Amino acid sequence: MRALRLPDWRTDPELVEADEPKPGPGQVVVKIGAAGACHSDLHLMHDFEAGTVPWNPPFILGHENAGWVHAVGAGVTGLEIGQPVAVYGPWGCGTCARCRVGAENYCENPAAAPVPSGGGGLGLDGGMAKYELVPAARLVVPLPEGLDAVQAAPLTDAGLTPYHAIRRSWPKLPPGSTAVVIGVGGLGHVGVQILKATTATRVIAVDTRDEALRLAEECGADLTLRSGESTAEEIRSATGGRGADVVLDFVGADGTLRLGAAAARTLGDLTIVGIGGGSLPVGFFSVPYEVSIQTTYWGSRPELIEVLELGAQGLVRPKTTTFKLDDAMQAYHQMQDGTLEGRAVIVP
Amino acid sequence: MRALRLPDWRTDPELVEADEPKPGPGQVVVKIGAAGACHSDLHLMHDFEAGTVPWNPPFILGHENAGWVHAVGAGVTGLEIGQPVAVYGPWGCGTCARCRVGAENYCENPAAAPVPSGGGGLGLDGGMAKYELVPAARLVVPLPEGLDAVQAAPLTDAGLTPYHAIRRSWPKLPPGSTAVVIGVGGLGHVGVQILKATTATRVIAVDTRDEALRLAEECGADLTLRSGESTAEEIRSATGGRGADVVLDFVGADGTLRLGAAAARTLGDLTIVGIGGGSLPVGFFSVPYEVSIQTTYWGSRPELIEVLELGAQGLVRPKTTTFKLDDAMQAYHQMQDGTLEGRAVIVP
Amino acid sequence: MRALRLPDWRTDPELVEADEPKPGPGQVVVKIGAAGACHSDLHLMHDFEAGTVPWNPPFILGHENAGWVHAVGAGVTGLEIGQPVAVYGPWGCGTCARCRVGAENYCENPAAAPVPSGGGGLGLDGGMAKYELVPAARLVVPLPEGLDAVQAAPLTDAGLTPYHAIRRSWPKLPPGSTAVVIGVGGLGHVGVQILKATTATRVIAVDTRDEALRLAEECGADLTLRSGESTAEEIRSATGGRGADVVLDFVGADGTLRLGAAAARTLGDLTIVGIGGGSLPVGFFSVPYEVSIQTTYWGSRPELIEVLELGAQGLVRPKTTTFKLDDAMQAYHQMQDGTLEGRAVIVP
Amino acid sequence: MRALRLPDWRTDPELVEADEPKPGPGQVVVKIGAAGACHSDLHLMHDFEAGTVPWNPPFILGHENAGWVHAVGAGVTGLEIGQPVAVYGPWGCGTCARCRVGAENYCENPAAAPVPSGGGGLGLDGGMAKYELVPAARLVVPLPEGLDAVQAAPLTDAGLTPYHAIRRSWPKLPPGSTAVVIGVGGLGHVGVQILKATTATRVIAVDTRDEALRLAEECGADLTLRSGESTAEEIRSATGGRGADVVLDFVGADGTLRLGAAAARTLGDLTIVGIGGGSLPVGFFSVPYEVSIQTTYWGSRPELIEVLELGAQGLVRPKTTTFKLDDAMQAYHQMQDGTLEGRAVIVP
Repeated sequence: MRALRLPDWRTDPELVEADEPKPGPGQVVVKIGAAGACHSDLHLMHDFEAGTVPWNPPFILGHENAGWVHAVGAGVTGLEIGQPVAVYGPWGCGTCARCRVGAENYCENPAAAPVPSGGGGLGLDGGMAKYELVPAARLVVPLPEGLDAVQAAPLTDAGLTPYHAIRRSWPKLPPGSTAVVIGVGGLGHVGVQILKATTATRVIAVDTRDEALRLAEECGADLTLRSGESTAEEIRSATGGRGADVVLDFVGADGTLRLGAAAARTLGDLTIVGIGGGSLPVGFFSVPYEVSIQTTYWGSRPELIEVLELGAQGLVRPKTTTFKLDDAMQAYHQMQDGTLEGRAVIVP
Repeated sequence: MRALRLPDWRTDPELVEADEPKPGPGQVVVKIGAAGACHSDLHLMHDFEAGTVPWNPPFILGHENAGWVHAVGAGVTGLEIGQPVAVYGPWGCGTCARCRVGAENYCENPAAAPVPSGGGGLGLDGGMAKYELVPAARLVVPLPEGLDAVQAAPLTDAGLTPYHAIRRSWPKLPPGSTAVVIGVGGLGHVGVQILKATTATRVIAVDTRDEALRLAEECGADLTLRSGESTAEEIRSATGGRGADVVLDFVGADGTLRLGAAAARTLGDLTIVGIGGGSLPVGFFSVPYEVSIQTTYWGSRPELIEVLELGAQGLVRPKTTTFKLDDAMQAYHQMQDGTLEGRAVIVP
Repeated sequence: MRALRLPDWRTDPELVEADEPKPGPGQVVVKIGAAGACHSDLHLMHDFEAGTVPWNPPFILGHENAGWVHAVGAGVTGLEIGQPVAVYGPWGCGTCARCRVGAENYCENPAAAPVPSGGGGLGLDGGMAKYELVPAARLVVPLPEGLDAVQAAPLTDAGLTPYHAIRRSWPKLPPGSTAVVIGVGGLGHVGVQILKATTATRVIAVDTRDEALRLAEECGADLTLRSGESTAEEIRSATGGRGADVVLDFVGADGTLRLGAAAARTLGDLTIVGIGGGSLPVGFFSVPYEVSIQTTYWGSRPELIEVLELGAQGLVRPKTTTFKLDDAMQAYHQMQDGTLEGRAVIVP
Repeated sequence: MRALRLPDWRTDPELVEADEPKPGPGQVVVKIGAAGACHSDLHLMHDFEAGTVPWNPPFILGHENAGWVHAVGAGVTGLEIGQPVAVYGPWGCGTCARCRVGAENYCENPAAAPVPSGGGGLGLDGGMAKYELVPAARLVVPLPEGLDAVQAAPLTDAGLTPYHAIRRSWPKLPPGSTAVVIGVGGLGHVGVQILKATTATRVIAVDTRDEALRLAEECGADLTLRSGESTAEEIRSATGGRGADVVLDFVGADGTLRLGAAAARTLGDLTIVGIGGGSLPVGFFSVPYEVSIQTTYWGSRPELIEVLELGAQGLVRPKTTTFKLDDAMQAYHQMQDGTLEGRAVIVP
């Protein structure tokens, strides 16, 4: 089968002919309907090297995948051939305390996982091919009615990641509260949609780019702010001086973190979703009292089921541009140039 | 001042001239902008008698009130004359554990309250007059910008009561869940709006009347069901056999409670809001496992602030028909005849 | 191997020679170290008949089991031969939303389970034998250090059931609160221990038998009450008139449920754990405001891990009397006569 | 009356004759039974200057106070002369959203408070005198039976502060979890007691001083570690590699924060209670995934009621040494020298 494979670190991926996978006991082969191209793939191509992560190329790219059950191995029950499914992306050991409740993104025994701290498209063969081998049936999630693979694929990461970050902050987002979204890109614009769909909080979106702010408005943001020196002050002023109950930083640079800390309300949440590599000095006198600061990484399988449901109801719709598998590199080039509109989805 | 006073049990209220109230230390006089007429007022006129509740007529009716601060007593700070406010309805002792966090609806020392288990319009003079005396400044809540008294008044009960019942069930209402609203009347139709505004749950509305189901649809219900023998089955079928995660019974009759128990999902909530006087036999084998069954009564002051916010954002809009104070009895007559559209609001 | 098998409904179990089980793919054979004898086994022998539950004899008894991994089937990873384990008792489908987070006690697809709404000793062969076949590796939980099989076995039901009922009520049990345990038998006395170990609540134990109240005291109850006409009043008086924040009814008869409703505080929990077959009429005027009333059934796998931990730390210690497999019927006879001290544990 | 007053910044307090306070409307005068001497008082004497905080000397010291109601102003109800009470220390505006639920430690309108971001002994006259004027009846909390003023006074800060920090982390502290207490001083040793009293978590205590570790053991710590280069590793090793679910840093220096981050489990809590002035760089790659990092400051009034209850039950007992008011400076000198055992309590 045709596949987009990363042959080595610091190398461009290449279109190759790969063997079609066969499912072993407990495994599932998914016929790919759509595979999302993620900004983090660019890091795989350009920035990582041996030792950055506990796995190495070659492997087929694509960690946001949806399609149909193509074949199942011995002992697999509860799935039918042809059934539309999404692939849950973070593949853990399946037996530790975290995995047992579906939070494989925080697997505590990565040495026992199919690949440590990775998954399909992240150390193992992913979905930018005709078929993907999924190493355990539990990692495959049926699509709800009304959601096709092209819509579903980006929800498995660009949907699930903001969903997890927002869901954990729900108790701080009653009517009258304010949520700030910093960075209205691939994940951020979905974050705005999720906030509007699941809470009655007021959403303030912050970005440096006008078109990003326009997108935020389309997604339902109540207020958009071009980021600058006075942004924190503008947020305080828009919240009666109290500050934002929840700040979601989809950039994660030094400056955005500083903005988040300056804009947060006491007892609020400041959640670092973006992998911008920034850092915030946290101490007794540097952030408002009892603002909780944390990173989040991807999400759990029960949360994936919920975000797919939001997609099926039409409440969350990532913007997408589709590409054929043969044109996949074009998607990445546009992503790098900043000319890509929404999420790129590869349709093999 | 002109006022609608209940002179005695089992008697019609009458329009009288009453003295204008003066605020004592810590008290507030509110100039009434709107006073909601509630179905429970009919019980006061027709069904109660000495001993039903720990207070007696005469008192001015009206327990859903909003207006403007008219005068404040000694020691009151933080309120300005002319400031638009709503009156928090259940008046507790102010010092027990429940009152201290604003849940005066569940005051544990009613003997120390202004009147035991009552409030303005419920044992003490209420808002169907030019002015209302509120016995403590903490019971007065500023209106958010953009919300006028006519919209605010019904939110203090017809809004707050369903809001409290729904808010406590939020953790059981993630995307993919189902909420059932039984009885789409004065409180139920607001309940549908609140569910849609604050969660992404699917809402099923059940009523015996076609016009109620049309109202539910207008309010955003995803599915409406004319109640009948097969309703529980239809709900199970609409939820993949699982049942409803949350059932809100705004009727509270034997039959609606039985329907709620039959329609609920294991681990769900069945909440009795309506004072229909019904009863459900609860035991190990009569309801699905770990369905929590409880009544709720009114709501807390922090919740009132939140529901007013929903009103100000236009996310919750009780249907109202306004009446002059002189025509207040007409409102009650229409209520009794079933010809009243939405909530009756008296505008003195 | 020797085994205690129930041959039919309304029949005494008999000691038989059964084939030793062999594990299929994904399965585990556990060498039994201890199997608890449960009061519900008496119902299996005497009260059930075809149609009571969706399964039928013959099967080997014993649904509270612990021992060592004896053999594993193809594809089982993460378990070592000889490793001490407990068997999680309620066996669900493994793939529904409830099972996916370990709450197989509330499986929503029982038709896809090994046996519908049952498990080992409940429709399928259980642990009163040399070996037990466990149909999926996920149902086997490693024992923490310091806990032997005889201590662990009763924790899988007599420990897990009260643990689940108490854990869900933790938020209502801060310092200053009161929990009432009605019925200090096999589950109730463990309930008292769990309350004392995991909260700082005051525990009031209620029973009709003096020796049960003595056991409650040994387990740490702060107050014990011989149940009678004035018990609800005594509980109110011991709680400053407020009532009990949480009532756990380990009997579940009409009278104990009525007591629970009369003794509960507004906003409290009344949880029906005991299968006494009673029923409580619940309506707007019959129970204190917003008391949540629910049954609970067994517990989840993550909760089993936690209760085993309590056992390993010595914080929870069910009283036990051990019997040889050949004397198992004697255990049931003593249970029926009321002469059994603590939980009977069969050691094959 | 005799009182210990701070006359100016960077000055020693002095014993003076002050006027006895008289209660205005809504106010309460408390006859002091005990006033705790807090390490933060040393900062007031030595480190603060004009501008450090929004208030200035002179004022009477003492912000941990308990005693008896001596006189009440007009309009105060629900308190009896002679009734034993504790004084809730952080005095807020009383009407903002935080104050309304008793969290005056996080008052959002400090300009409307009796003194901005302070209280008795912190900008206003405190309890190191015969009487203290408390500016609102809501700030006075009745003592539960069995708790005297000497025990109660330190609970209002040295008890309440760790209690709040621990209570917010309860959901992360089920059986099988681990809590690390860094710094076993005046607050830390009470923290160990509170953890043991209210949860079944395992407690690891870390300090540089042997006598502190002995105190931790007396308070119930399961493991004590002399802090050093390998402490984080020892904590990981004691937790099966997972790390600590909750880390409470009662020091708050750079080094202890670094230790906390290194020792924490993914999804855990790292709470900065100590005012050591340190700072931790927080970013996507510097702390385990989704560890929540926050400061906490003092606690809420409902929490004070709960911690007093723990004291009355004998579950929490701060170590104390009592001093006469005339010897108060001796207490501070011993505190500074490190020769003070437990908390110093001044008994006027």
